[in-house]
Amino acid sequence: MNVQANHSLAELAERFDLRCHGDADTRITGVGTLAGAGAHQLSFLSNSKYAAQLADTHAGAVIVREENLAACSVPALVARDPYVAYAKIAALFEHIPTAPAGIHPSAVVAPSARVSASASIGPCCVIESDAVIEDGAVLGPHCIIGEGCVVGAQSRLVARVTLVIRVTLGKRVLVHPGVVIGSDGFGLAFDTDHWIKLPQLGGVRIGDDCEIGANTTIDRGALDDTVLEEDVRLDNQIQIAHNVHVGAHTAMAGCAAVAGSAKIGRYCMIGGNAGVLGHLEVADRVTITAKSLVTHSIREAGEYSSGTPLQDNRAWRKSAARFKHLDEYARRLSALEKDSNDE
Amino acid sequence: MNVQANHSLAELAERFDLRCHGDADTRITGVGTLAGAGAHQLSFLSNSKYAAQLADTHAGAVIVREENLAACSVPALVARDPYVAYAKIAALFEHIPTAPAGIHPSAVVAPSARVSASASIGPCCVIESDAVIEDGAVLGPHCIIGEGCVVGAQSRLVARVTLVIRVTLGKRVLVHPGVVIGSDGFGLAFDTDHWIKLPQLGGVRIGDDCEIGANTTIDRGALDDTVLEEDVRLDNQIQIAHNVHVGAHTAMAGCAAVAGSAKIGRYCMIGGNAGVLGHLEVADRVTITAKSLVTHSIREAGEYSSGTPLQDNRAWRKSAARFKHLDEYARRLSALEKDSNDE
Amino acid sequence: MNVQANHSLAELAERFDLRCHGDADTRITGVGTLAGAGAHQLSFLSNSKYAAQLADTHAGAVIVREENLAACSVPALVARDPYVAYAKIAALFEHIPTAPAGIHPSAVVAPSARVSASASIGPCCVIESDAVIEDGAVLGPHCIIGEGCVVGAQSRLVARVTLVIRVTLGKRVLVHPGVVIGSDGFGLAFDTDHWIKLPQLGGVRIGDDCEIGANTTIDRGALDDTVLEEDVRLDNQIQIAHNVHVGAHTAMAGCAAVAGSAKIGRYCMIGGNAGVLGHLEVADRVTITAKSLVTHSIREAGEYSSGTPLQDNRAWRKSAARFKHLDEYARRLSALEKDSNDE
Repeated sequence: MNVQANHSLAELAERFDLRCHGDADTRITGVGTLAGAGAHQLSFLSNSKYAAQLADTHAGAVIVREENLAACSVPALVARDPYVAYAKIAALFEHIPTAPAGIHPSAVVAPSARVSASASIGPCCVIESDAVIEDGAVLGPHCIIGEGCVVGAQSRLVARVTLVIRVTLGKRVLVHPGVVIGSDGFGLAFDTDHWIKLPQLGGVRIGDDCEIGANTTIDRGALDDTVLEEDVRLDNQIQIAHNVHVGAHTAMAGCAAVAGSAKIGRYCMIGGNAGVLGHLEVADRVTITAKSLVTHSIREAGEYSSGTPLQDNRAWRKSAARFKHLDEYARRLSALEKDSNDE
Repeated sequence: MNVQANHSLAELAERFDLRCHGDADTRITGVGTLAGAGAHQLSFLSNSKYAAQLADTHAGAVIVREENLAACSVPALVARDPYVAYAKIAALFEHIPTAPAGIHPSAVVAPSARVSASASIGPCCVIESDAVIEDGAVLGPHCIIGEGCVVGAQSRLVARVTLVIRVTLGKRVLVHPGVVIGSDGFGLAFDTDHWIKLPQLGGVRIGDDCEIGANTTIDRGALDDTVLEEDVRLDNQIQIAHNVHVGAHTAMAGCAAVAGSAKIGRYCMIGGNAGVLGHLEVADRVTITAKSLVTHSIREAGEYSSGTPLQDNRAWRKSAARFKHLDEYARRLSALEKDSNDE
Repeated sequence: MNVQANHSLAELAERFDLRCHGDADTRITGVGTLAGAGAHQLSFLSNSKYAAQLADTHAGAVIVREENLAACSVPALVARDPYVAYAKIAALFEHIPTAPAGIHPSAVVAPSARVSASASIGPCCVIESDAVIEDGAVLGPHCIIGEGCVVGAQSRLVARVTLVIRVTLGKRVLVHPGVVIGSDGFGLAFDTDHWIKLPQLGGVRIGDDCEIGANTTIDRGALDDTVLEEDVRLDNQIQIAHNVHVGAHTAMAGCAAVAGSAKIGRYCMIGGNAGVLGHLEVADRVTITAKSLVTHSIREAGEYSSGTPLQDNRAWRKSAARFKHLDEYARRLSALEKDSNDE
């Protein structure tokens, strides 16, 4: 928490264009859950299912929809979307360690690199030739910015981020530790009895306002670039292969993977550990549920799934054994129907 | 191997409370498999299925159960659980590179950080403000300990471990390279046409005696903390999302993933690449087999699975095609039964 | 692109033993796709399905099979396998940042380590006691080479690679950022009510010409070594557990995982996010499709799969619900058949 932040409910209402209900002088110094928040903390109710918790909360104030205001025993901010309002307000109370402008003495910066005077370069960073770090960018400890890579203005590489080569990050991109962007795409040609590597001559372009989770990997393209449009949100340990194109505002949950040259639309939601095979196209506003595998292009918005439901292991073994014979069962069923009709 | 270690069978028997059978003066300088161990190496037989190998082993001695002693052609240590006894004894023969107390000159340590005089801080480590490194803790090369994080006594961060912020490790925690703990949870609110990030204001608490495998990621909580109780064992490349709670003594195999706010019980075994959806509860002593997806809360101990069995691709294609029509087949089956009963 | 490279078509034909068709003096300074290549770029047609693009290409020249030569409107190189020929030629145009021989002043090298004078050791590398870096090896920034590890001649560790202990890389091995090789295998014995760790006393041996993708993890063996034979190609975020043995020329796509002591044959292809359970054997020339789980040993070459096809979520829910009752359906089907036969 940012221990300095302290706002009255009235100030928050004005700043975020919300209606204040109850004591507008209530001081807010932090945020918390309905169950855990104290007298100077702000909470929120997004899902009406939990409206009963409003009666018991000890929060100093609560962000609610108009419809839940009656049930609210404490001062409130009324919002059309309490979750969005909460997200914006909570940011005031986040403590982000300071990152002073300038280059830490332990960093290794190539003479030809261009580092803005307002950028912050942390301990042990390595910035190679012709790299560009724009205004206000923050590189935490141990970042490696390869030859010619660009980190856009106000972007933040938390720590230990590697941009290999031909990588361009837009503005306000947030990259978490362990991320590798611009490593070789996995391109191989089979020559009689061994593999020949295909040089990966493309790059990676990451749009403004993207977020890339810890230990995620994004390979650079074989000839053209791998592309994430703006506001793409990737969770941890996601794998984006070479020449993938991800449309704006698409979000992927942890451990999702997209194979080479797949094209994912805008406003898609890819579930945890879901996969998309190579060279497919996925339309805008498609949701893929967790652990599903996309094996063909998807032309229409909607929700798609594969897999089987969880069962007790004994029951599952029976289902699984029968699965292997489904074709036979279907044929036998048809034969019976034919017999039945022939009678 | 620790080339210095050299113990007589009698010494090992006494130290680990085992019964010695045969020449108690046998010198043991290492450990090995039944097939590979030499005259001064100790081996073990845990699974009676392999008892036949006892006759041919060239091991200097073998740890066996009472029931396998008769088949044993070499000196032996008799144990109730030979695998556990082996694990304890083998630790004597492990060579762990020395880690001298003190701070490597290339490390960057904030003035406000508190580093025990008995801790070892390796090359290029970065320890940020108000972090605490307790007695006997070992940080291998390239560890980053973020602001205010705590590394408990005797914990060992092998190399290249990142604790981002608000992370507390208990005592004797072992963390392997590439691990990221305390990165931002994946919290987003959708505001009309773009994403708003939810600040992640919680932390991570890791209990005593936990082990965290290479390149595993554990996010910090949104408001409350992400928690691993004591003796939790995580293999490589596991993803633990924000606000997950993992009960004591639970073990997870490689590439498992647990989504946000899920609560896993004690003594659970989560198989490789298995997944648990968010906000679910899994009871104590639940086993999830590899690659299964937990889609609902599990209230009873037991083994659970999802997925289909491996088949030859031609056969699998037929099964898979039929799977899509299962509902229709079930209806046709019911119709036939009705016809049959009506006759 | 390597901006210096400039070759006539005749030179390329001679060097790679291809037949030149059309203007042999055509200058080639780069490579590109059929759709994107310009007047001095070389493209290729590997899949005859795209032969129609030959008519419209603006490429300076194209690599084609004999059978596609007639459709080709520009100068050409004729190859038996255009993709392989392209891979070899494209390498001429790849720009790899220079890595000067010698040790960067920020690197930390133990006195007992042996580093070839022709090797290049980048910024912030840590090379521990008794490690060996052979001739022409390149270690990019932030590599950690643990005690006694060996990096073979001409191998290239792009950046931020960790070799923990007892790891030997062959010649010309290419390792991408974030890779961890030689971390502890996941070996645990359950002692009444808590876990005991099994020391991991083996190592890892990686054969010549292997490639290891970003953030991949390869654990060292419990007693014997984990082994990759020569020319094994691993994509990103792959998990190789302790004592796995991977045969020569096997390739694995992103996020594949192999559990402990599994033995994979030669010339296998393991699809993205596929898994192999522990202690299994997979024969030579086996293909596993993406996201499949190998649950039993495979004795014969061929293609194998598991999983269910992607469906619209509503349809999938019906299939999935029915899957749980497959055993019952099969019994009811048999009963109906029996009734039918009895009539």
